[in-house]
Amino acid sequence: MNTPPGKLYLVPAPLDFGCATQTPLTEVLPAGTLAVAARLQHWICENAKSARAYLKRVGEQQALAHALQSLDLQELPREVHKKGDHGSTAFDAKPLLGPAVAGHDMGLLSEAGMPAVADPGSSVVRAAHEMGIPVVPLVGPVSLLLALAASGLSGQNFAFVGYLPQDAAERARRIRELESLALKSGQTQLFIETPYRNAALQDALIKTLQHNTRLAVASGLTLAGAQLHSRTVKQWKQQPLPPDKDTPAVYAIGR
Amino acid sequence: MNTPPGKLYLVPAPLDFGCATQTPLTEVLPAGTLAVAARLQHWICENAKSARAYLKRVGEQQALAHALQSLDLQELPREVHKKGDHGSTAFDAKPLLGPAVAGHDMGLLSEAGMPAVADPGSSVVRAAHEMGIPVVPLVGPVSLLLALAASGLSGQNFAFVGYLPQDAAERARRIRELESLALKSGQTQLFIETPYRNAALQDALIKTLQHNTRLAVASGLTLAGAQLHSRTVKQWKQQPLPPDKDTPAVYAIGR
Repeated sequence: MNTPPGKLYLVPAPLDFGCATQTPLTEVLPAGTLAVAARLQHWICENAKSARAYLKRVGEQQALAHALQSLDLQELPREVHKKGDHGSTAFDAKPLLGPAVAGHDMGLLSEAGMPAVADPGSSVVRAAHEMGIPVVPLVGPVSLLLALAASGLSGQNFAFVGYLPQDAAERARRIRELESLALKSGQTQLFIETPYRNAALQDALIKTLQHNTRLAVASGLTLAGAQLHSRTVKQWKQQPLPPDKDTPAVYAIGR
Repeated sequence: MNTPPGKLYLVPAPLDFGCATQTPLTEVLPAGTLAVAARLQHWICENAKSARAYLKRVGEQQALAHALQSLDLQELPREVHKKGDHGSTAFDAKPLLGPAVAGHDMGLLSEAGMPAVADPGSSVVRAAHEMGIPVVPLVGPVSLLLALAASGLSGQNFAFVGYLPQDAAERARRIRELESLALKSGQTQLFIETPYRNAALQDALIKTLQHNTRLAVASGLTLAGAQLHSRTVKQWKQQPLPPDKDTPAVYAIGR
Protein backbone atom coordinates (compact mmCIF):
# COMPACT_ATOMS: atom_id res chain seq x y z
CA MET A 1 0.00 0.00 0.00
CA ASN A 2 2.72 2.48 0.92
CA THR A 3 4.94 3.25 -2.07
CA PRO A 4 8.39 4.26 -0.80
CA PRO A 5 9.23 7.80 -1.91
CA GLY A 6 11.60 8.50 -4.77
CA LYS A 7 14.94 10.21 -4.17
CA LEU A 8 15.82 13.84 -4.80
CA TYR A 9 19.09 14.03 -6.74
CA LEU A 10 21.03 17.31 -6.73
CA VAL A 11 22.33 17.40 -10.30
CA PRO A 12 25.20 19.77 -11.14
CA ALA A 13 25.39 21.54 -14.50
CA PRO A 14 28.48 22.78 -16.39
CA LEU A 15 29.67 26.35 -15.81
CA ASP A 16 29.24 27.47 -19.43
CA PHE A 17 25.69 28.84 -19.09
CA GLY A 18 25.35 31.85 -21.39
CA CYS A 19 28.87 31.37 -22.79
CA ALA A 20 29.72 31.36 -26.48
CA THR A 21 31.70 28.10 -26.27
CA GLN A 22 30.47 25.00 -24.45
CA THR A 23 32.59 22.64 -22.33
CA PRO A 24 32.29 18.96 -23.29
CA LEU A 25 30.13 17.51 -20.49
CA THR A 26 32.58 14.65 -19.95
CA GLU A 27 35.21 17.20 -18.85
CA VAL A 28 33.18 18.32 -15.86
CA LEU A 29 30.59 15.63 -15.05
CA PRO A 30 31.37 12.06 -13.95
CA ALA A 31 29.75 9.23 -15.91
CA GLY A 32 27.79 8.46 -12.72
CA THR A 33 26.22 11.93 -12.69
CA LEU A 34 25.41 11.76 -16.41
CA ALA A 35 23.78 8.33 -15.94
CA VAL A 36 21.41 9.64 -13.25
CA ALA A 37 20.57 12.78 -15.24
CA ALA A 38 19.79 10.63 -18.31
CA ARG A 39 17.27 8.44 -16.52
CA LEU A 40 15.19 11.01 -14.58
CA GLN A 41 11.82 12.18 -15.87
CA HIS A 42 10.82 14.60 -13.11
CA TRP A 43 12.78 17.79 -12.53
CA ILE A 44 12.69 20.96 -10.46
CA CYS A 45 14.76 23.63 -12.17
CA GLU A 46 15.56 27.33 -12.30
CA ASN A 47 14.42 27.64 -15.89
CA ALA A 48 12.72 24.97 -18.02
CA LYS A 49 14.26 26.13 -21.28
CA SER A 50 17.85 25.90 -20.06
CA ALA A 51 17.10 22.62 -18.24
CA ARG A 52 15.91 21.16 -21.55
CA ALA A 53 19.04 22.44 -23.32
CA TYR A 54 21.22 20.82 -20.65
CA LEU A 55 19.37 17.49 -20.84
CA LYS A 56 19.70 17.52 -24.61
CA ARG A 57 23.49 17.68 -24.12
CA VAL A 58 23.29 14.86 -21.55
CA GLY A 59 21.40 12.80 -24.15
CA GLU A 60 24.32 13.18 -26.55
CA GLN A 61 26.47 11.31 -23.98
CA GLN A 62 23.99 8.76 -22.63
CA ALA A 63 20.60 7.89 -24.14
CA LEU A 64 17.78 9.62 -22.23
CA ALA A 65 15.28 7.20 -20.68
CA HIS A 66 12.44 9.65 -21.48
CA ALA A 67 12.08 11.78 -24.60
CA LEU A 68 12.85 15.49 -24.07
CA GLN A 69 9.24 16.44 -24.88
CA SER A 70 7.90 14.07 -22.22
CA LEU A 71 10.02 15.44 -19.36
CA ASP A 72 8.23 16.99 -16.39
CA LEU A 73 10.08 20.28 -15.72
CA GLN A 74 8.78 22.35 -12.82
CA GLU A 75 10.31 25.80 -12.37
CA LEU A 76 11.14 27.31 -9.00
CA PRO A 77 8.85 30.34 -8.60
CA ARG A 78 10.20 33.86 -9.05
CA GLU A 79 9.76 34.68 -5.36
CA VAL A 80 12.56 32.21 -4.52
CA HIS A 81 14.93 33.90 -6.96
CA LYS A 82 14.08 37.34 -5.63
CA LYS A 83 13.72 36.76 -1.90
CA GLY A 84 15.84 33.65 -1.37
CA ASP A 85 14.78 30.23 -0.17
CA HIS A 86 14.37 31.15 3.45
CA GLY A 87 13.14 34.74 3.27
CA SER A 88 10.66 36.37 5.64
CA THR A 89 7.78 34.69 3.82
CA ALA A 90 9.34 31.24 3.61
CA PHE A 91 8.56 29.45 0.37
CA ASP A 92 6.84 26.06 0.76
CA ALA A 93 8.50 23.75 -1.75
CA LYS A 94 6.57 20.63 -0.70
CA PRO A 95 4.03 20.68 -3.57
CA LEU A 96 6.92 20.53 -6.08
CA LEU A 97 7.93 17.17 -4.63
CA GLY A 98 4.67 15.42 -5.53
CA PRO A 99 6.32 13.03 -8.02
CA ALA A 100 8.80 11.89 -5.32
CA VAL A 101 5.92 11.24 -2.93
CA ALA A 102 4.37 9.10 -5.68
CA GLY A 103 7.57 7.05 -5.84
CA HIS A 104 9.49 8.72 -8.68
CA ASP A 105 13.11 9.81 -8.43
CA MET A 106 13.51 13.55 -9.11
CA GLY A 107 16.32 15.93 -10.07
CA LEU A 108 17.03 19.44 -8.79
CA LEU A 109 18.95 21.51 -11.33
CA SER A 110 20.25 25.06 -11.55
CA GLU A 111 21.54 26.87 -14.62
CA ALA A 112 25.21 26.43 -13.72
CA GLY A 113 27.08 24.50 -11.03
CA MET A 114 25.57 22.86 -7.96
CA PRO A 115 21.94 23.56 -7.08
CA ALA A 116 21.46 25.21 -3.66
CA VAL A 117 25.07 26.47 -3.54
CA ALA A 118 25.30 30.18 -4.47
CA ASP A 119 21.97 29.49 -6.16
CA PRO A 120 18.34 28.87 -5.21
CA GLY A 121 17.09 25.41 -4.27
CA SER A 122 17.76 24.87 -0.57
CA SER A 123 14.04 25.23 0.20
CA VAL A 124 13.41 22.18 -2.01
CA VAL A 125 16.14 20.21 -0.23
CA ARG A 126 14.74 21.20 3.16
CA ALA A 127 11.23 20.17 2.13
CA ALA A 128 12.60 16.78 1.00
CA HIS A 129 14.16 16.21 4.43
CA GLU A 130 10.90 17.16 6.13
CA MET A 131 8.96 14.73 3.93
CA GLY A 132 11.35 11.81 4.40
CA ILE A 133 12.54 11.94 0.77
CA PRO A 134 16.20 10.82 0.54
CA VAL A 135 18.52 13.55 -0.80
CA VAL A 136 21.49 12.50 -2.96
CA PRO A 137 24.03 15.17 -4.02
CA LEU A 138 25.93 14.28 -7.21
CA VAL A 139 29.44 15.37 -8.19
CA GLY A 140 30.05 18.17 -10.67
CA PRO A 141 31.69 21.58 -11.03
CA VAL A 142 31.27 24.24 -8.32
CA SER A 143 32.84 27.52 -9.39
CA LEU A 144 33.36 28.76 -5.82
CA LEU A 145 35.32 25.70 -4.77
CA LEU A 146 37.42 25.53 -7.91
CA ALA A 147 38.28 29.20 -7.40
CA LEU A 148 39.08 28.70 -3.72
CA ALA A 149 41.36 25.70 -4.38
CA ALA A 150 43.13 27.61 -7.14
CA SER A 151 43.47 30.87 -5.18
CA GLY A 152 46.48 29.98 -3.03
CA LEU A 153 44.52 31.33 -0.07
CA SER A 154 43.58 29.21 2.94
CA GLY A 155 40.94 26.58 2.21
CA GLN A 156 40.93 25.44 5.84
CA ASN A 157 38.85 28.40 6.99
CA PHE A 158 36.75 30.33 4.49
CA ALA A 159 33.42 32.05 3.93
CA PHE A 160 31.27 32.78 0.89
CA VAL A 161 29.22 35.95 1.25
CA GLY A 162 27.41 36.26 -2.09
CA TYR A 163 27.40 39.65 -3.85
CA LEU A 164 28.79 42.92 -2.49
CA PRO A 165 26.62 46.08 -2.47
CA GLN A 166 26.39 48.01 -5.76
CA ASP A 167 26.54 51.48 -4.23
CA ALA A 168 30.18 52.63 -4.31
CA ALA A 169 30.38 53.87 -0.71
CA GLU A 170 28.57 50.86 0.71
CA ARG A 171 30.73 48.54 -1.39
CA ALA A 172 33.95 50.14 -0.11
CA ARG A 173 32.70 49.80 3.48
CA ARG A 174 31.86 46.14 2.91
CA ILE A 175 35.26 45.48 1.28
CA ARG A 176 37.02 46.95 4.32
CA GLU A 177 34.81 44.91 6.65
CA LEU A 178 35.60 41.65 4.80
CA GLU A 179 39.32 42.47 4.64
CA SER A 180 39.43 43.15 8.36
CA LEU A 181 37.70 39.81 9.04
CA ALA A 182 40.07 37.96 6.69
CA LEU A 183 43.21 39.49 8.17
CA LYS A 184 42.17 39.12 11.83
CA SER A 185 40.72 35.62 11.72
CA GLY A 186 42.60 34.16 8.75
CA GLN A 187 39.23 33.32 7.18
CA THR A 188 39.43 33.64 3.37
CA GLN A 189 36.46 35.70 2.14
CA LEU A 190 34.85 34.74 -1.18
CA PHE A 191 32.25 36.64 -3.19
CA ILE A 192 30.93 36.75 -6.75
CA GLU A 193 29.99 39.32 -9.36
CA THR A 194 28.14 39.38 -12.68
CA PRO A 195 30.15 39.99 -15.88
CA TYR A 196 29.10 43.58 -16.48
CA ARG A 197 30.06 44.65 -12.94
CA ASN A 198 33.43 42.86 -12.79
CA ALA A 199 35.34 45.95 -13.92
CA ALA A 200 33.82 48.19 -11.22
CA LEU A 201 34.35 45.62 -8.48
CA GLN A 202 37.94 44.81 -9.42
CA ASP A 203 38.71 48.51 -9.52
CA ALA A 204 37.10 49.09 -6.11
CA LEU A 205 38.96 46.15 -4.57
CA ILE A 206 42.35 47.33 -5.78
CA LYS A 207 41.67 50.89 -4.59
CA THR A 208 40.26 49.90 -1.20
CA LEU A 209 42.31 46.92 0.01
CA GLN A 210 45.67 47.21 1.78
CA HIS A 211 48.89 46.63 -0.19
CA ASN A 212 49.77 43.32 1.41
CA THR A 213 46.32 41.75 1.17
CA ARG A 214 46.11 38.95 -1.39
CA LEU A 215 43.34 39.19 -4.02
CA ALA A 216 42.51 36.25 -6.27
CA VAL A 217 40.12 36.65 -9.21
CA ALA A 218 38.85 33.65 -11.19
CA SER A 219 36.44 33.51 -14.10
CA GLY A 220 35.51 30.89 -16.67
CA LEU A 221 37.14 28.03 -14.73
CA THR A 222 36.67 24.72 -16.61
CA LEU A 223 36.08 26.77 -19.81
CA ALA A 224 38.42 27.47 -22.70
CA GLY A 225 38.82 31.14 -21.71
CA ALA A 226 39.55 30.56 -18.02
CA GLN A 227 41.21 33.48 -16.24
CA LEU A 228 42.87 33.06 -12.86
CA HIS A 229 45.13 35.46 -11.01
CA SER A 230 46.26 35.50 -7.39
CA ARG A 231 48.48 38.39 -6.30
CA THR A 232 48.95 40.96 -3.58
CA VAL A 233 47.12 44.25 -4.04
CA LYS A 234 50.50 45.91 -4.52
CA GLN A 235 51.13 43.62 -7.51
CA TRP A 236 47.65 44.33 -8.90
CA LYS A 237 48.48 48.05 -8.75
CA GLN A 238 51.90 47.66 -10.34
CA GLN A 239 50.76 45.44 -13.19
CA PRO A 240 47.06 46.00 -13.87
CA LEU A 241 45.10 43.20 -15.57
CA PRO A 242 41.88 43.68 -17.53
CA PRO A 243 38.74 42.28 -15.84
CA ASP A 244 36.68 39.57 -17.55
CA LYS A 245 33.61 41.33 -18.96
CA ASP A 246 31.98 38.18 -20.41
CA THR A 247 31.88 35.69 -17.52
CA PRO A 248 30.86 35.88 -13.84
CA ALA A 249 33.89 36.02 -11.57
CA VAL A 250 34.72 34.64 -8.13
CA TYR A 251 36.83 36.87 -5.86
CA ALA A 252 38.84 35.73 -2.84
CA ILE A 253 40.69 37.91 -0.35
CA GLY A 254 42.94 36.93 2.53
CA ARG A 255 46.42 37.15 3.88
CA MET B 1 66.01 28.99 -24.86
CA ASN B 2 63.22 29.64 -22.37
CA THR B 3 61.08 26.54 -21.88
CA PRO B 4 57.56 27.64 -20.92
CA PRO B 5 56.64 26.25 -17.48
CA GLY B 6 54.34 23.25 -17.08
CA LYS B 7 50.92 23.61 -15.46
CA LEU B 8 49.95 22.72 -11.91
CA TYR B 9 46.75 20.64 -11.98
CA LEU B 10 44.71 20.35 -8.78
CA VAL B 11 43.52 16.75 -8.97
CA PRO B 12 40.61 15.65 -6.77
CA ALA B 13 40.48 12.16 -5.23
CA PRO B 14 37.42 10.09 -4.25
CA LEU B 15 36.08 10.38 -0.70
CA ASP B 16 36.62 6.70 0.19
CA PHE B 17 40.11 7.07 1.70
CA GLY B 18 40.42 4.57 4.55
CA CYS B 19 36.98 3.09 3.85
CA ALA B 20 36.27 -0.63 3.54
CA THR B 21 34.39 -0.25 0.25
CA GLN B 22 35.64 1.83 -2.66
CA THR B 23 33.54 4.03 -4.95
CA PRO B 24 34.01 3.34 -8.68
CA LEU B 25 36.10 6.31 -9.86
CA THR B 26 33.72 6.97 -12.76
CA GLU B 27 30.96 7.79 -10.24
CA VAL B 28 32.86 10.77 -8.83
CA LEU B 29 35.50 11.85 -11.36
CA PRO B 30 34.81 13.19 -14.88
CA ALA B 31 36.59 11.47 -17.76
CA GLY B 32 38.45 14.77 -18.25
CA THR B 33 39.91 14.62 -14.73
CA LEU B 34 40.87 10.94 -15.14
CA ALA B 35 42.59 11.72 -18.46
CA VAL B 36 44.81 14.39 -16.88
CA ALA B 37 45.63 12.21 -13.86
CA ALA B 38 46.58 9.34 -16.19
CA ARG B 39 49.11 11.35 -18.15
CA LEU B 40 51.03 13.18 -15.38
CA GLN B 41 54.41 11.93 -14.19
CA HIS B 42 55.24 14.54 -11.55
CA TRP B 43 53.15 14.83 -8.40
CA ILE B 44 53.05 16.67 -5.09
CA CYS B 45 50.95 14.71 -2.61
CA GLU B 46 50.03 14.29 1.04
CA ASN B 47 51.29 10.71 1.13
CA ALA B 48 53.15 8.86 -1.62
CA LYS B 49 51.69 5.45 -0.76
CA SER B 50 48.06 6.56 -1.00
CA ALA B 51 48.86 8.64 -4.12
CA ARG B 52 50.23 5.49 -5.78
CA ALA B 53 47.11 3.52 -4.74
CA TYR B 54 44.89 6.22 -6.24
CA LEU B 55 46.87 6.35 -9.51
CA LYS B 56 46.67 2.56 -9.76
CA ARG B 57 42.87 2.91 -9.70
CA VAL B 58 43.07 5.69 -12.32
CA GLY B 59 45.12 3.29 -14.49
CA GLU B 60 42.27 0.77 -14.39
CA GLN B 61 40.11 3.39 -16.15
CA GLN B 62 42.61 5.02 -18.50
CA ALA B 63 46.08 3.69 -19.37
CA LEU B 64 48.77 5.56 -17.42
CA ALA B 65 51.30 7.38 -19.62
CA HIS B 66 54.08 6.49 -17.13
CA ALA B 67 54.48 3.24 -15.20
CA LEU B 68 53.56 3.48 -11.50
CA GLN B 69 57.17 2.74 -10.48
CA SER B 70 58.48 5.60 -12.61
CA LEU B 71 56.22 8.30 -11.11
CA ASP B 72 57.85 11.19 -9.30
CA LEU B 73 55.86 11.56 -6.04
CA GLN B 74 57.00 14.35 -3.71
CA GLU B 75 55.31 14.50 -0.30
CA LEU B 76 54.31 17.74 1.41
CA PRO B 77 56.51 17.99 4.53
CA ARG B 78 55.05 17.26 7.97
CA GLU B 79 55.34 20.90 9.05
CA VAL B 80 52.60 21.83 6.54
CA HIS B 81 50.27 19.19 7.97
CA LYS B 82 50.95 20.32 11.53
CA LYS B 83 51.19 24.09 11.21
CA GLY B 84 49.16 24.75 8.06
CA ASP B 85 50.26 26.21 4.76
CA HIS B 86 50.53 29.79 5.94
CA GLY B 87 51.65 29.38 9.54
CA SER B 88 53.97 31.71 11.44
CA THR B 89 56.98 30.10 9.75
CA ALA B 90 55.55 30.09 6.24
CA PHE B 91 56.51 27.01 4.27
CA ASP B 92 58.31 27.70 0.99
CA ALA B 93 56.83 25.30 -1.56
CA LYS B 94 58.81 26.63 -4.52
CA PRO B 95 61.44 23.85 -4.58
CA LEU B 96 58.66 21.26 -5.00
CA LEU B 97 57.71 22.91 -8.29
CA GLY B 98 61.06 22.24 -9.97
CA PRO B 99 59.58 19.87 -12.59
CA ALA B 100 57.06 22.57 -13.63
CA VAL B 101 59.87 25.10 -14.02
CA ALA B 102 61.59 22.55 -16.29
CA GLY B 103 58.45 22.44 -18.46
CA HIS B 104 56.60 19.41 -17.06
CA ASP B 105 52.92 19.46 -16.07
CA MET B 106 52.43 18.50 -12.41
CA GLY B 107 49.58 17.28 -10.22
CA LEU B 108 48.70 18.29 -6.64
CA LEU B 109 46.80 15.54 -4.82
CA SER B 110 45.39 15.04 -1.35
CA GLU B 111 44.15 11.80 0.19
CA ALA B 112 40.47 12.61 -0.30
CA GLY B 113 38.57 15.35 -2.09
CA MET B 114 40.01 18.57 -3.46
CA PRO B 115 43.59 19.54 -2.59
CA ALA B 116 43.89 22.84 -0.69
CA VAL B 117 40.25 22.74 0.44
CA ALA B 118 39.92 21.55 4.06
CA ASP B 119 43.34 20.03 3.38
CA PRO B 120 46.95 21.17 2.96
CA GLY B 121 48.28 22.39 -0.36
CA SER B 122 47.48 26.09 -0.68
CA SER B 123 51.17 26.96 -0.16
CA VAL B 124 51.98 25.00 -3.32
CA VAL B 125 49.25 26.81 -5.25
CA ARG B 126 50.49 30.17 -3.98
CA ALA B 127 54.08 29.33 -4.96
CA ALA B 128 52.86 28.38 -8.45
CA HIS B 129 51.19 31.79 -8.85
CA GLU B 130 54.34 33.54 -7.67
CA MET B 131 56.45 31.56 -10.17
CA GLY B 132 54.13 32.18 -13.14
CA ILE B 133 53.09 28.51 -13.30
CA PRO B 134 49.49 28.23 -14.56
CA VAL B 135 47.12 26.62 -12.02
CA VAL B 136 44.26 24.44 -13.32
CA PRO B 137 41.68 23.11 -10.82
CA LEU B 138 39.92 19.92 -11.99
CA VAL B 139 36.41 18.75 -11.11
CA GLY B 140 35.80 16.05 -8.50
CA PRO B 141 34.05 15.39 -5.19
CA VAL B 142 34.29 17.92 -2.34
CA SER B 143 32.65 16.58 0.81
CA LEU B 144 31.96 20.04 2.26
CA LEU B 145 30.09 21.22 -0.78
CA LEU B 146 28.10 18.04 -1.25
CA ALA B 147 27.09 18.25 2.42
CA LEU B 148 26.18 21.94 2.15
CA ALA B 149 24.03 21.41 -0.97
CA ALA B 150 22.28 18.48 0.68
CA SER B 151 21.76 20.20 4.04
CA GLY B 152 18.71 22.29 3.19
CA LEU B 153 20.52 25.22 4.82
CA SER B 154 21.41 28.39 2.95
CA GLY B 155 24.17 27.95 0.38
CA GLN B 156 24.08 31.64 -0.51
CA ASN B 157 26.04 32.65 2.59
CA PHE B 158 28.16 30.09 4.42
CA ALA B 159 31.46 29.53 6.21
CA PHE B 160 33.68 26.53 6.80
CA VAL B 161 35.61 26.73 10.07
CA GLY B 162 37.53 23.43 10.22
CA TYR B 163 37.49 21.46 13.47
CA LEU B 164 35.93 22.54 16.78
CA PRO B 165 37.99 22.41 20.01
CA GLN B 166 38.28 19.00 21.72
CA ASP B 167 37.94 20.28 25.28
CA ALA B 168 34.26 19.99 26.28
CA ALA B 169 33.89 23.48 27.77
CA GLU B 170 35.74 25.17 24.93
CA ARG B 171 33.77 23.17 22.40
CA ALA B 172 30.44 24.22 23.95
CA ARG B 173 31.55 27.86 23.91
CA ARG B 174 32.55 27.59 20.24
CA ILE B 175 29.24 25.89 19.36
CA ARG B 176 27.31 28.77 20.97
CA GLU B 177 29.51 31.30 19.15
CA LEU B 178 28.92 29.66 15.76
CA GLU B 179 25.17 29.31 16.44
CA SER B 180 24.90 32.97 17.36
CA LEU B 181 26.72 33.93 14.15
CA ALA B 182 24.51 31.63 12.05
CA LEU B 183 21.26 32.90 13.58
CA LYS B 184 22.19 36.61 13.50
CA SER B 185 23.77 36.79 10.05
CA GLY B 186 22.03 33.89 8.32
CA GLN B 187 25.48 32.48 7.49
CA THR B 188 25.41 28.66 7.54
CA GLN B 189 28.36 27.39 9.62
CA LEU B 190 30.11 24.21 8.49
CA PHE B 191 32.70 22.16 10.34
CA ILE B 192 34.15 18.64 10.25
CA GLU B 193 35.09 15.88 12.67
CA THR B 194 37.06 12.63 12.57
CA PRO B 195 35.16 9.32 12.89
CA TYR B 196 36.11 8.53 16.48
CA ARG B 197 34.97 11.95 17.74
CA ASN B 198 31.67 12.11 15.84
CA ALA B 199 29.69 10.70 18.77
CA ALA B 200 31.03 13.29 21.25
CA LEU B 201 30.49 16.18 18.85
CA GLN B 202 26.96 15.17 17.85
CA ASP B 203 26.06 14.80 21.51
CA ALA B 204 27.53 18.21 22.37
CA LEU B 205 25.72 19.90 19.48
CA ILE B 206 22.33 18.48 20.45
CA LYS B 207 22.84 19.45 24.10
CA THR B 208 24.18 22.94 23.40
CA LEU B 209 22.19 24.28 20.43
CA GLN B 210 18.76 25.91 20.71
CA HIS B 211 15.63 23.89 19.89
CA ASN B 212 14.82 25.69 16.64
CA THR B 213 18.33 25.66 15.20
CA ARG B 214 18.73 23.31 12.25
CA LEU B 215 21.56 20.78 12.43
CA ALA B 216 22.58 18.74 9.36
CA VAL B 217 25.07 15.88 9.65
CA ALA B 218 26.50 14.15 6.56
CA SER B 219 29.02 11.34 6.30
CA GLY B 220 30.13 9.00 3.55
CA LEU B 221 28.53 11.09 0.78
CA THR B 222 29.17 9.46 -2.63
CA LEU B 223 29.82 6.14 -0.79
CA ALA B 224 27.55 3.13 -0.37
CA GLY B 225 27.00 3.84 3.34
CA ALA B 226 26.16 7.53 2.99
CA GLN B 227 24.33 9.06 5.95
CA LEU B 228 22.57 12.39 5.71
CA HIS B 229 20.16 14.00 8.16
CA SER B 230 18.90 17.58 8.39
CA ARG B 231 16.54 18.38 11.27
CA THR B 232 15.88 20.91 14.00
CA VAL B 233 17.63 20.28 17.31
CA LYS B 234 14.20 19.57 18.80
CA GLN B 235 13.76 16.73 16.30
CA TRP B 236 17.26 15.41 17.04
CA LYS B 237 16.29 15.28 20.73
CA GLN B 238 12.93 13.61 20.11
CA GLN B 239 14.27 10.96 17.73
CA PRO B 240 17.98 10.36 18.37
CA LEU B 241 20.08 8.92 15.55
CA PRO B 242 23.35 7.04 16.01
CA PRO B 243 26.49 8.92 14.85
CA ASP B 244 28.71 7.48 12.11
CA LYS B 245 31.76 6.06 13.87
CA ASP B 246 33.54 4.89 10.70
CA THR B 247 33.64 7.94 8.43
CA PRO B 248 34.51 11.63 8.90
CA ALA B 249 31.40 13.79 9.08
CA VAL B 250 30.48 17.28 7.92
CA TYR B 251 28.23 19.32 10.21
CA ALA B 252 26.15 22.34 9.21
CA ILE B 253 24.13 24.60 11.49
CA GLY B 254 21.82 27.46 10.62
CA ARG B 255 18.29 28.70 10.81
